Amino acid sequence: MKVNGRHYRSLWWDDHAHALMIIDQRWLPHDFRVAELRTADNCAVAIREMWVRGAPLIGATAAYAMALRMKADPSNGALDAAWDQLHATRPTAINLRWALDRCRSLLEPLGPPARAEAALALAHELADEDVEINRRIGEHGLALIREITPRKRTGEPVRLLTHCNAGWVATVDWGTATSPMYQAHDAGIALHVWVDETRPRNQGALTAWELGSHGISHSYVVDNAGGHLMQHGLVDMVIVGTDRTTRRGDVCNKIGTYLKALAARDNGVPFYVALPSPTIDWRVDDGFAEIPIEERAPQETTHVLGRTEAGNIEHVLVAPEGTPGGNPAFDVTPSHLVTGLITERGVCEASAAGLAALFPEHSAGDGRSGDRGPDSPAPESAG
Amino acid sequence: MKVNGRHYRSLWWDDHAHALMIIDQRWLPHDFRVAELRTADNCAVAIREMWVRGAPLIGATAAYAMALRMKADPSNGALDAAWDQLHATRPTAINLRWALDRCRSLLEPLGPPARAEAALALAHELADEDVEINRRIGEHGLALIREITPRKRTGEPVRLLTHCNAGWVATVDWGTATSPMYQAHDAGIALHVWVDETRPRNQGALTAWELGSHGISHSYVVDNAGGHLMQHGLVDMVIVGTDRTTRRGDVCNKIGTYLKALAARDNGVPFYVALPSPTIDWRVDDGFAEIPIEERAPQETTHVLGRTEAGNIEHVLVAPEGTPGGNPAFDVTPSHLVTGLITERGVCEASAAGLAALFPEHSAGDGRSGDRGPDSPAPESAG
Repeated sequence: MKVNGRHYRSLWWDDHAHALMIIDQRWLPHDFRVAELRTADNCAVAIREMWVRGAPLIGATAAYAMALRMKADPSNGALDAAWDQLHATRPTAINLRWALDRCRSLLEPLGPPARAEAALALAHELADEDVEINRRIGEHGLALIREITPRKRTGEPVRLLTHCNAGWVATVDWGTATSPMYQAHDAGIALHVWVDETRPRNQGALTAWELGSHGISHSYVVDNAGGHLMQHGLVDMVIVGTDRTTRRGDVCNKIGTYLKALAARDNGVPFYVALPSPTIDWRVDDGFAEIPIEERAPQETTHVLGRTEAGNIEHVLVAPEGTPGGNPAFDVTPSHLVTGLITERGVCEASAAGLAALFPEHSAGDGRSGDRGPDSPAPESAG
Repeated sequence: MKVNGRHYRSLWWDDHAHALMIIDQRWLPHDFRVAELRTADNCAVAIREMWVRGAPLIGATAAYAMALRMKADPSNGALDAAWDQLHATRPTAINLRWALDRCRSLLEPLGPPARAEAALALAHELADEDVEINRRIGEHGLALIREITPRKRTGEPVRLLTHCNAGWVATVDWGTATSPMYQAHDAGIALHVWVDETRPRNQGALTAWELGSHGISHSYVVDNAGGHLMQHGLVDMVIVGTDRTTRRGDVCNKIGTYLKALAARDNGVPFYVALPSPTIDWRVDDGFAEIPIEERAPQETTHVLGRTEAGNIEHVLVAPEGTPGGNPAFDVTPSHLVTGLITERGVCEASAAGLAALFPEHSAGDGRSGDRGPDSPAPESAG
């Protein structure tokens, strides 16, 4: 989307330099910097150190990393080593393994001389696929926003609330939860977006940066505020992203999503989840019982990243020195709190039946033995 | 309560210096500093600039300020001027006006020569009254915690969650929500307290400092975490404080309280509110419709106060430069989400009937025409 009036993707290929260009997100929202990645090792660092973040973007970056490696050394050994090296950078990221498996299953049968070109073509394909998936999510979400506009008084914006950053910088372009916002804005619909800060890592600052850069009206609010805003009729719809959605529609997303879903239900506010189908885990039914929740470093809660008066970007201590912190990174919103799932194929009920109707190729038998298409993550199947 | 093994109140009178000693809370949780206030002007600055904070503590500080002023000048003019000056420091603080009105109604009928001594005696009385109210709240809350202990496995602590700081540094001693915690800990009950950070002002850091100083096990968690913790059975009871409670039990408290109440209901976790009766507003029924919510400076959301690597305590920017922030400071938790109110007279249902049973002197007629006792705030009645 737009930064300073110019359109960017969060990564792009530079043919002349034979290098992957990325937005180095460590400096956002305070600074917009582009980095050039010339080797798979560069890419591995960028993924591990979170120069890039967001499941779809990590997957695309890994595919380009594989292409860079195959250009340097297309041997079987290099292919296996690159898979291992890249997978180890963020071992729990479901799209990373999915992208690497797609690379390997394409490249393995080819002879080494054909691999470099094929790998680069696949990386382009994965990136373009992600853009197209998100564009379609935006179209379906835009239709939902359009349904709200007749109820607004003249001049009154449609008010959305979002949590975390399911934005274009977490994908190749458009974002997931933000794609309907960009498309509504571009279609001339007046919007205002309440952006949850999303402690502990404050990804709301990224969302605020994105929306501000694209010219969409928004307010940065603390995570505590959403319930009050909904009580007072100031939220027409909640749209969030998801890290993983189960076959029956339970939504695992950034910690705090569940609280907003509860407030939405209590106040009759529609609560939608935008998701590309690769983030559906068809092997999991009960998100609450079956998805392990990552417990991250307590320093993320006791410290905050910000820009000091002197202009340094650093972690400042907000709790007393030595305070123990608890830091569950995700929570699970049960499907019954979700009004609907916005996928690239359309909007469906958050249920096994709803998802099966949109994705019949995954719904054979009990859904666990269904034919697994190439776009389904298989966290258990790869070594 | 205890700091470095020594018992403190958050304010105390130094007879020798004829001065009010306070804990200067601007430096907490990073630094423990005591300040000496020798004049009413000093006290006014301390209230306005939030060296002291918390409704009960502000009230007591104002009473000492009045005593200092009466010592310097016991005239009618000085009495009126002190009322005006002190009331203007935090005009929306309900206990401040209540304390000032108590001072004026005692001092006005007295001749000037008797005022200094009477004012100081009243300040002592108000401070001691606050301690006693909070001690009793703790006793009644302790009984609720004792009911949980038989259900815990050996060695497993009773797990409480609290929001904001309704601790001893917001009162003269004990705190309100924390008083049951201190009494349970002192009675040998194993506790663990989940301390909500409470953005935007991070009062959870004060609660963590208090609990840590007193030796109570706790974890500092972001405001997003509580729902997940309750889903996983890691919270036995929520106890929060309140800024104002209506006659029928609606609870106005720090922004985000409502979200925790929703999560508590969804997971069958008891949700209690600890409140000294002076914070009950007997003239208000419907907290949602009748209590205006203060909108504070947006900089509180876009910035965070913390200690930098260089050891400076400053506000760092977390959102993009220039991001608009929204900052409602309180929300209202409807009474039906509240399991019970813990008052100095006992625990009651959060309802007009429940409160009337404990405070029959306020329940005559429709409750709005009831005889108002000296411990009831009267926000509309004072000029």
